[in-house]
Amino acid sequence: MKLWGGRFSSEPDAQAWAFNRSLAVDQRMAQQDVQASQAWAHALQAAGLLTPEEGSAICTGLQSIADEFSAGNFAFQDSDEDIHTAVERRLGELIGALAGKLHTGRSRNDQVVTDFRLWLMEQIPLIDHSLGVVQSALQQRAEEDFGTLLPGFTHTQHAQPVLFSHWWLAHLWALQRDRQRLAQLWQRTAVLPLGSGALAGTSFAIDRAALAEELGFLEPSPNSLDAVADRDFAAELLFDASLCGVHLSKLAEALILFSTPEFGYIELSDAYTTGSSLMPQKKNPDMLELTRAKAGVLLGSLTGLMTVLKGLPGAYDKDLQEDKAPVFLACDTLNALLPVVAGVISTLRVNAARTLAVIDDGMLATDLADVLVGAGVPFREAHAAAGKAVRLAAEKGISLSQLSLADYQSIHPAFDAQVFNIFDPKASVARHAAVGGTAPEAVRQQMHAASLAIQSISYPLSK
Amino acid sequence: MKLWGGRFSSEPDAQAWAFNRSLAVDQRMAQQDVQASQAWAHALQAAGLLTPEEGSAICTGLQSIADEFSAGNFAFQDSDEDIHTAVERRLGELIGALAGKLHTGRSRNDQVVTDFRLWLMEQIPLIDHSLGVVQSALQQRAEEDFGTLLPGFTHTQHAQPVLFSHWWLAHLWALQRDRQRLAQLWQRTAVLPLGSGALAGTSFAIDRAALAEELGFLEPSPNSLDAVADRDFAAELLFDASLCGVHLSKLAEALILFSTPEFGYIELSDAYTTGSSLMPQKKNPDMLELTRAKAGVLLGSLTGLMTVLKGLPGAYDKDLQEDKAPVFLACDTLNALLPVVAGVISTLRVNAARTLAVIDDGMLATDLADVLVGAGVPFREAHAAAGKAVRLAAEKGISLSQLSLADYQSIHPAFDAQVFNIFDPKASVARHAAVGGTAPEAVRQQMHAASLAIQSISYPLSK
Amino acid sequence: MKLWGGRFSSEPDAQAWAFNRSLAVDQRMAQQDVQASQAWAHALQAAGLLTPEEGSAICTGLQSIADEFSAGNFAFQDSDEDIHTAVERRLGELIGALAGKLHTGRSRNDQVVTDFRLWLMEQIPLIDHSLGVVQSALQQRAEEDFGTLLPGFTHTQHAQPVLFSHWWLAHLWALQRDRQRLAQLWQRTAVLPLGSGALAGTSFAIDRAALAEELGFLEPSPNSLDAVADRDFAAELLFDASLCGVHLSKLAEALILFSTPEFGYIELSDAYTTGSSLMPQKKNPDMLELTRAKAGVLLGSLTGLMTVLKGLPGAYDKDLQEDKAPVFLACDTLNALLPVVAGVISTLRVNAARTLAVIDDGMLATDLADVLVGAGVPFREAHAAAGKAVRLAAEKGISLSQLSLADYQSIHPAFDAQVFNIFDPKASVARHAAVGGTAPEAVRQQMHAASLAIQSISYPLSK
Amino acid sequence: MKLWGGRFSSEPDAQAWAFNRSLAVDQRMAQQDVQASQAWAHALQAAGLLTPEEGSAICTGLQSIADEFSAGNFAFQDSDEDIHTAVERRLGELIGALAGKLHTGRSRNDQVVTDFRLWLMEQIPLIDHSLGVVQSALQQRAEEDFGTLLPGFTHTQHAQPVLFSHWWLAHLWALQRDRQRLAQLWQRTAVLPLGSGALAGTSFAIDRAALAEELGFLEPSPNSLDAVADRDFAAELLFDASLCGVHLSKLAEALILFSTPEFGYIELSDAYTTGSSLMPQKKNPDMLELTRAKAGVLLGSLTGLMTVLKGLPGAYDKDLQEDKAPVFLACDTLNALLPVVAGVISTLRVNAARTLAVIDDGMLATDLADVLVGAGVPFREAHAAAGKAVRLAAEKGISLSQLSLADYQSIHPAFDAQVFNIFDPKASVARHAAVGGTAPEAVRQQMHAASLAIQSISYPLSK
Repeated sequence: MKLWGGRFSSEPDAQAWAFNRSLAVDQRMAQQDVQASQAWAHALQAAGLLTPEEGSAICTGLQSIADEFSAGNFAFQDSDEDIHTAVERRLGELIGALAGKLHTGRSRNDQVVTDFRLWLMEQIPLIDHSLGVVQSALQQRAEEDFGTLLPGFTHTQHAQPVLFSHWWLAHLWALQRDRQRLAQLWQRTAVLPLGSGALAGTSFAIDRAALAEELGFLEPSPNSLDAVADRDFAAELLFDASLCGVHLSKLAEALILFSTPEFGYIELSDAYTTGSSLMPQKKNPDMLELTRAKAGVLLGSLTGLMTVLKGLPGAYDKDLQEDKAPVFLACDTLNALLPVVAGVISTLRVNAARTLAVIDDGMLATDLADVLVGAGVPFREAHAAAGKAVRLAAEKGISLSQLSLADYQSIHPAFDAQVFNIFDPKASVARHAAVGGTAPEAVRQQMHAASLAIQSISYPLSK
Repeated sequence: MKLWGGRFSSEPDAQAWAFNRSLAVDQRMAQQDVQASQAWAHALQAAGLLTPEEGSAICTGLQSIADEFSAGNFAFQDSDEDIHTAVERRLGELIGALAGKLHTGRSRNDQVVTDFRLWLMEQIPLIDHSLGVVQSALQQRAEEDFGTLLPGFTHTQHAQPVLFSHWWLAHLWALQRDRQRLAQLWQRTAVLPLGSGALAGTSFAIDRAALAEELGFLEPSPNSLDAVADRDFAAELLFDASLCGVHLSKLAEALILFSTPEFGYIELSDAYTTGSSLMPQKKNPDMLELTRAKAGVLLGSLTGLMTVLKGLPGAYDKDLQEDKAPVFLACDTLNALLPVVAGVISTLRVNAARTLAVIDDGMLATDLADVLVGAGVPFREAHAAAGKAVRLAAEKGISLSQLSLADYQSIHPAFDAQVFNIFDPKASVARHAAVGGTAPEAVRQQMHAASLAIQSISYPLSK
Repeated sequence: MKLWGGRFSSEPDAQAWAFNRSLAVDQRMAQQDVQASQAWAHALQAAGLLTPEEGSAICTGLQSIADEFSAGNFAFQDSDEDIHTAVERRLGELIGALAGKLHTGRSRNDQVVTDFRLWLMEQIPLIDHSLGVVQSALQQRAEEDFGTLLPGFTHTQHAQPVLFSHWWLAHLWALQRDRQRLAQLWQRTAVLPLGSGALAGTSFAIDRAALAEELGFLEPSPNSLDAVADRDFAAELLFDASLCGVHLSKLAEALILFSTPEFGYIELSDAYTTGSSLMPQKKNPDMLELTRAKAGVLLGSLTGLMTVLKGLPGAYDKDLQEDKAPVFLACDTLNALLPVVAGVISTLRVNAARTLAVIDDGMLATDLADVLVGAGVPFREAHAAAGKAVRLAAEKGISLSQLSLADYQSIHPAFDAQVFNIFDPKASVARHAAVGGTAPEAVRQQMHAASLAIQSISYPLSK
Repeated sequence: MKLWGGRFSSEPDAQAWAFNRSLAVDQRMAQQDVQASQAWAHALQAAGLLTPEEGSAICTGLQSIADEFSAGNFAFQDSDEDIHTAVERRLGELIGALAGKLHTGRSRNDQVVTDFRLWLMEQIPLIDHSLGVVQSALQQRAEEDFGTLLPGFTHTQHAQPVLFSHWWLAHLWALQRDRQRLAQLWQRTAVLPLGSGALAGTSFAIDRAALAEELGFLEPSPNSLDAVADRDFAAELLFDASLCGVHLSKLAEALILFSTPEFGYIELSDAYTTGSSLMPQKKNPDMLELTRAKAGVLLGSLTGLMTVLKGLPGAYDKDLQEDKAPVFLACDTLNALLPVVAGVISTLRVNAARTLAVIDDGMLATDLADVLVGAGVPFREAHAAAGKAVRLAAEKGISLSQLSLADYQSIHPAFDAQVFNIFDPKASVARHAAVGGTAPEAVRQQMHAASLAIQSISYPLSK
């Protein structure tokens, strides 16, 4: 069944029909299609275009179709062009010609994007929830690993010691921004296109505000031409997903490094690693590698949709049919990925002895400079002096704490015996006590702020 | 001058130095670097690390440097690695060794991203303003062209008639979403990294909340590791700019079509077109073509930065140096582009006679179906009947309104003489009166809503 | 069944297992996996690692598996991690413990990329063939429409008249470059990784040159580390496909314009258009719009894979698992798309009267300038004079040929009565007779060159 | 000066003019513009459109302009729209009205893309040369480090030992593919557009084959419409550069890891590292991080141009103006990057003691399985046995070689005392002797093949 054809004198070419057909993708929105159609029937009835009996019969028929989808026994036909056609065809089988009244005053142009927005309005809270689960795993690690020191890195080189908890929380905040973006996107998604017709609006007395409310939208769209063409919400979802993917790729990359034998900072659980078909000793961080890779896949989806949208002139252009596959893929990817990431985090074992052992005196060279600053030496001069100490120690093949006081005073006269007090990484960490720093007290405050932030995002209960 | 080197035994390779040097790009943030350094000096003084006299001397020296930048007579040196180095080097020339105290407790890692955020906090309102100018041009056209009918298109084929005003407003709403996204991004950008040190926070008693307030930030960042690494705001700016570019490319594409001789809907002003070096008759819509192209360039910048960010393990990695060029380019592109787009819109001439003339009876076929719906015929049956009428008229080589009543009744018995009343595009437009539709009264309401929406976005006055 | 696990003390987490499992994607390479395994068995036998009886039993078992795949009755199990595991598991069911000898000296790392290359070595000639079909359709149109003039466009504005045949052929050459790139890619794809082991090569006396020859590869890979990591061929396929997509999007965009009522240059066949669920009169170029959109989808796949590959440190990293889905999608897209494009081209109707009618005098303004050049006037001066004529005609509301001789001579004294001879578009076309120009004789030569070029690309017969 | 305007009644808007103007970018092709114009003057003279005296005067004038560009004293004017306009304007100043004859029969459409191709025909050999320099650095390392063992990695986990030379050569082959792609691209770039006019060809008797030969092109383009629109070569350059960037990012990522204190495999030269403004001890691999980042920037350029090209309908569209900036940037990036990468490679110090020390017994577990294979045990069973040995050793907290023979025989009866012979990484490496493997003899052969391959690519001497 096609929903058109009166004016056509020949049938579509078979390859063209197959190329054009979107059912394989858009059947994913079957429930949303039924739900929106039921609301549309109510609106038609309120507008006097259906009698109460007709409205009731249509909604009952639609409910049967929804039940068939739920039960998995809806039978698609080769001639169903898309999910809308399939539903209307089936409705006709169930209730006869009356089914033909349902499409009054609407178009597949406003229908499809209504379905799509409804689908996404359900997905975003699910993704948000999964992000929250990862945040919880990070919080829990921050609690558990509170006493553990970690070499902090910049440029993948040792920089300064930090609390491992501080490091876990860094990732929590990135995900919090993702959740914030998604929550704002939800608001923009919850704008109802239905009632925009093909492009010009509907010529019947539809109460679009009531329609919006019934379907859980915040408001009807203000312009019908824009409503049927606007795919900003899809592009924005793909961007938010891509940036979330980047955040996860960063975490994954670091954990992959931490789990190498050379680093040995952590050991991943057997449950989240795999082996090799050839090399019996291998224990591979496949989950983390796939996590890292998914950032690329998500970015590809974003690029693809943006390029599809570029330069489209019209209200609805068929190019827009390519909007759903990448969004479905992105949501599926995050929904599969996030629980695995949470599992990896929760089950890995931290080797606190190792992370402490690798913190060398060199990581405290900034503290060494700060000693001179405390003695009134300008920081730039103090920095140069500490650099010379690093070089002298390297030339002597010893560590900074093994240099003699004479060595230090040969470098800068302001050094005194206090210098040897700085070579304690715990003390270094504790000195970084300003807001957002790695000192234990600052991290405790941060954990409290994180708890509040996490709870600050919520969604309306779905209808 | 380098801000490091004590531990190095040899000088950088010349090609490596040139490859590494970022001054050509980051000198763009000269004023922000000075401004943030002044605030930092105040914070050091408040923390007792500078005497009032020292603080005052540093701030005065920095002000001289700011004045040199403003006057365009700051002399960069080949040895300046980046803008931070250049400023500190010059400060030393102006006030001597005291300059070496300024970098106490901070790092270029927190400094550069503070400068960058400050720069963007200034740019976003400028872009927002330019978007508002384009919106105003669209509003004005909606007023001027209020009585003009336009063939509405889907699939780049005639669909239904709409008000030209409705079409202009469709673009206004897309830009409104861009502005909304940018306003939300501004909030996320206004989070202060300064005081995060290289990665671990600062070990001095800096009041970061006061620092944030002085510089116009909303709050200090909650985690130092995240603060020096987070480039979400840059990626988000590039996404917002890219999606805005897509919106403009859509407008451009349509106006390019409308200005072809075949369409003839509009004529672009000579002031916004160019000619050909070979073909004397040409009048080319170059501005619109470049507008369309910029969507691609902006998307490339987004893709580029996202790929740079993917898989970075650390707090600060040098890869992040590639963050600024695409953001500067994106802002420059929008700032150059938007006024030109506004100009194109304001100065083009609409050929209302032509847009009316090309509205053929076929565009009212939906109204024809609606006539039958009014007579109680299910829409699907009515749609088929109207399709048959279209085909019959085509076969006869006449228009829909030239079919006889007998023709219509041969197609469907429910047709009566009222059918001939529908062939008036103005009446068709007027029937689309639901919220968001193209009927004049609905468009008037929409224009009011647009005015309110446009005014709803504002920014703090910059400091 | 897993091909590893001896060293693991716990089972994989269920969600992690599902996330990690690639069977849904890589089962596409079932036949290639069997084929490569048979060749590997031959190589093991030649190296003395299998007896002839063992080799024969393994190959027979593998053939049964191939037959099961062909017949569609191979039964995958939930525990099959990937296609390699499934085949080895099934082989064990068929021939017992002997199956465990097949994986001697190889790894899934070299196995998967061998399968993948084999798959692509089969696909590239298929895509090449489909490209050839589109080229043939273009050639045929060039023949059929040889006498038809078309307004040539630049900047989507009338430029100069051309032969419609010339326009069709322009697209043929772009596809020829695509075919050339694919042919060169085929050569780079036909490099055998098998025998590279997991990363270090194989420790058994495998004759890799013989293995390459048996499987239809040109040569064995020169470096095992590179061999298991190299996905250049996949990225290159995605680029070639993307650029081909861009070429098709250009053709699609033009044909969409040409089929608007305003242009009316062509009419698309009913067999390659669709209608509207709401608007009975619509005949939409959906195939062309989808063609245009696919360029974006393909580009997204390219971007995605390139981002996946960026920054991977190792020989084989699991991120590489994301290589196949985009390549399969790209090949499927082209294989579905190209025949439809060929069908659209072959079945559309050109309205030669319309394309001639819209060629206005203005399109001959360059010829007008050339008249003056013929009289010794420098071109730049001639161009300005012709421009003035265009403006004068516009001001008078007439066409160039309706200006009087006096008008012309007032613009430039070198004009004489010959000027009125230029206003014949056929003559203009005929004057562009240099190689590659639009004159009929030049286009005839071009058609001959095209025929030779098309036939110049061929592939080895597949094994 | 504009090269058009006769038909225009008003001047361009100032912002529009600035937005449209391309001189800042395309002045980069000044020499190519002059060179192509000289060849064009010769062609006009050969066609009888210029007298020998005129041709000579034009060419002399053009040479003066070329000299001004070389000397850096060509004075651009604000009114120069692009490089072509600037050259023609200056020619007029030098030789008077005769300059106006130069543009006879050509258009900026064919002119600009001729210049661009010429520019790229010069750049590709330069990039190829720089790639060769990196290859030489890799070759030299392969020589120097021939005796050094390296832990081979997959999944960033220890896999099997390899020769460090083998690892260096892996990167050489990837760059060889880049060079091969560039050489094939050069052939496609060397197709002459000049003589295609604006779109229809030239109406004068230009010998385009002679023109091609004079300028060093291989042949004239076969279709004028295609010639002025085709930017495949630019897209292909960006892809080739992006994939090269990916290859370099892989090398960079690995060297960054190798230079961490945890790995300690290599030490980078002071000449190719930088320090920290805050942390005196830091020695950062900035060059490698920037190298990794550039892969993203290059990919962004590719995405950008492809998106610009998508959906363009015409012969020449102004969107094409965005083609040059990304190509210039890509070439500049590679030209700056490659020598630095070569320098990093040449000057780093390998810590052979460390790379040997970290090769643990576990990396020989595959050899352990192979021992059983040698005893006739099916590999799959042998693999499982070796995995059990790994697990047993881990449980006992000892290494594989510390397990007792009884332990081994408890795992599999086929183990005998020979098992302890396998724990020598050198022997393991030597066993991987098939073509492309890591055994010293195979690597020696590979080095020879690499030498031949490197020399196999060459370019015509530039004119």
